[in-house]
Amino acid sequence: MTHTSVEHASFTIERVFKAPPERVFRAFADPAAHDRWFVKADNWPVAEYRHDFRVGGREGGRFSQDGKTFYFNETVYLDIVENRRIISAYTMAKDDRPISASIATVELVPEGSGTRVVFTEQAAFLDGLDQVEYRRSGWEQLIGFLAAELGEKAEAA
Amino acid sequence: MTHTSVEHASFTIERVFKAPPERVFRAFADPAAHDRWFVKADNWPVAEYRHDFRVGGREGGRFSQDGKTFYFNETVYLDIVENRRIISAYTMAKDDRPISASIATVELVPEGSGTRVVFTEQAAFLDGLDQVEYRRSGWEQLIGFLAAELGEKAEAA
Repeated sequence: MTHTSVEHASFTIERVFKAPPERVFRAFADPAAHDRWFVKADNWPVAEYRHDFRVGGREGGRFSQDGKTFYFNETVYLDIVENRRIISAYTMAKDDRPISASIATVELVPEGSGTRVVFTEQAAFLDGLDQVEYRRSGWEQLIGFLAAELGEKAEAA
Repeated sequence: MTHTSVEHASFTIERVFKAPPERVFRAFADPAAHDRWFVKADNWPVAEYRHDFRVGGREGGRFSQDGKTFYFNETVYLDIVENRRIISAYTMAKDDRPISASIATVELVPEGSGTRVVFTEQAAFLDGLDQVEYRRSGWEQLIGFLAAELGEKAEAA
């Protein structure tokens, strides 16, 4: 008998950037920019990713810090509104075991001449192999990398 | 300037079936069975759907009651554990406007000789075009159709 379990959870991270929505959007849409902050910023020895930023486009890659344990990401874009909204679904696996399936919404809300980034993840964590606190920390780190890509520090909103 | 908005929400529906998990799973996995209860049960004149039940498989279709307003579904399977769990991401559009993007988890938990079905949807409702109450009602109706496919009435859990 297969034992399975699912823990559903969601979280939101908000940050205000000086960059306008067009520049923040480009950091997701442009493969070279996305590669810098999303794929390569933490300098893991194995960080391979294919980009395909369009509705229905599939992205994904594999990541390893030690060359032994591999993390796999598979992403599909569900909705894109230029300069305003990006919604994707993605799964994460650790070696051959799926650890989560999620939907991630990135809202880019104009704020003065800058942008309020509202990141919301709604996730199913699978079989006790991942949890919301780790996922939130991971995205806080990624949004810090995004800030660096934009040449600024993200302010807590 | 494009105006966009997102309302995030989630809900869970639980039902207990007399059918064992294998039979409930088959109603999702078998294209003919899935077509009967998921696609055709409400007798809309336009109810077209392609089935592709496997991780990474894309399904979808179009539905219309009056031949004027069309609803479009696009689904991708994120995780499948035979007889135990099905996770998919899907978008709904009304004519040319996306109205939602969601992740849906179906858990099949053995209960005696039957199955407790735990359906959880985590959704982003887009631009004020759909809302969680409608979505929940829609799935309650669908789960009623699933019960009929299994030759029984679903008991509230």
